[in-house]
Amino acid sequence: MGGMAERAMELAIRAYGRRDPSLCKQVFAGERTINATERRLDELVLDLLAMQQPMAVDLRLILAISKCNADLERIGDQAVNIAECVEDLLGSPARDMPVDIPQMASVARTMLRRSLNAFAAADAAEAQAVLLLDDELDAMNDAAFTAVTGAIAKDPSFTRSLLNILIIARNLERIGDHATNIAEDVIFWVRGADVRHHATT
Amino acid sequence: MGGMAERAMELAIRAYGRRDPSLCKQVFAGERTINATERRLDELVLDLLAMQQPMAVDLRLILAISKCNADLERIGDQAVNIAECVEDLLGSPARDMPVDIPQMASVARTMLRRSLNAFAAADAAEAQAVLLLDDELDAMNDAAFTAVTGAIAKDPSFTRSLLNILIIARNLERIGDHATNIAEDVIFWVRGADVRHHATT
Repeated sequence: MGGMAERAMELAIRAYGRRDPSLCKQVFAGERTINATERRLDELVLDLLAMQQPMAVDLRLILAISKCNADLERIGDQAVNIAECVEDLLGSPARDMPVDIPQMASVARTMLRRSLNAFAAADAAEAQAVLLLDDELDAMNDAAFTAVTGAIAKDPSFTRSLLNILIIARNLERIGDHATNIAEDVIFWVRGADVRHHATT
Repeated sequence: MGGMAERAMELAIRAYGRRDPSLCKQVFAGERTINATERRLDELVLDLLAMQQPMAVDLRLILAISKCNADLERIGDQAVNIAECVEDLLGSPARDMPVDIPQMASVARTMLRRSLNAFAAADAAEAQAVLLLDDELDAMNDAAFTAVTGAIAKDPSFTRSLLNILIIARNLERIGDHATNIAEDVIFWVRGADVRHHATT
């Protein structure tokens, strides 16, 4: 699931950079596989709980997997949203944008990669580091709102493309939120502590 | 959790309708309670799984509760996003908006209410009806994008307020998505079938 979610995001951002509608199509096709895999994984969780009756750290791990599964599926949805905006953008000529989407994507990608690494390595310290990156991405998203407002004021004929940029920025910010959720689930699993909403950080 | 999520959404929409910043503050304060309740509910789920080792329909119910819990917490986040937009809107004079936010809110509210009723009554048919409403809300959100683009073209000085309207519309659409998730969890629990992504509808 992690690999598929990463790939969906990669493809959507590459579609943006290269203005390539065929990459958008790959994102849409990939979403069906991600959805099917989410269902299969949930069934495995149900079977494991029913048949093995795991305890303590095993139980926490399985609950963490169940939650990460949902977050990764939603990252697939966000990639679809981005690819839809890219398709709409291709209806207008290319021009400079007031928001550095590749830079935002780079932070979101780093967060996702590090949260998945933290999961694979059961590394709560690495997961904790992901939480700090989320503020950076939130600030970039707020700056995108201001930049888009200013750019529309300067050239309203460009509004439609700018709204697409705004929505792409918001979807990247949400991918960061899901990476944050995954990191928190790793900490919950490894340390047995609930750090959601930074209650104990 | 359902009641608190409903109330957060109500307050945010009332804050929009009445242009009342004190209602925004209530949404922000309520979010902390929602977050704390989500954590407590997750701990109860963990305890139940560890101590009772539930089987079959009981196990499915507890997993459904765990998933709904996450969706309801996120509806609280969406209400906060809406309230933040309302605060920003209050920086500009009131004027007519090209998107009927109260109407969109009414559909989202109906979806949430009916999905929670379906949960309380273990009513899979009622849950199924919620799934149909989501297309309506998605169409309203798409129409909002077009309406906002057109309104900015007509009066760019109004851009900032219109972007806030666009973001409110998107958050209402996401509340509908979470209500849909809850309805799907009810069907999974009651019928033992996974209807996510409309795989078996």
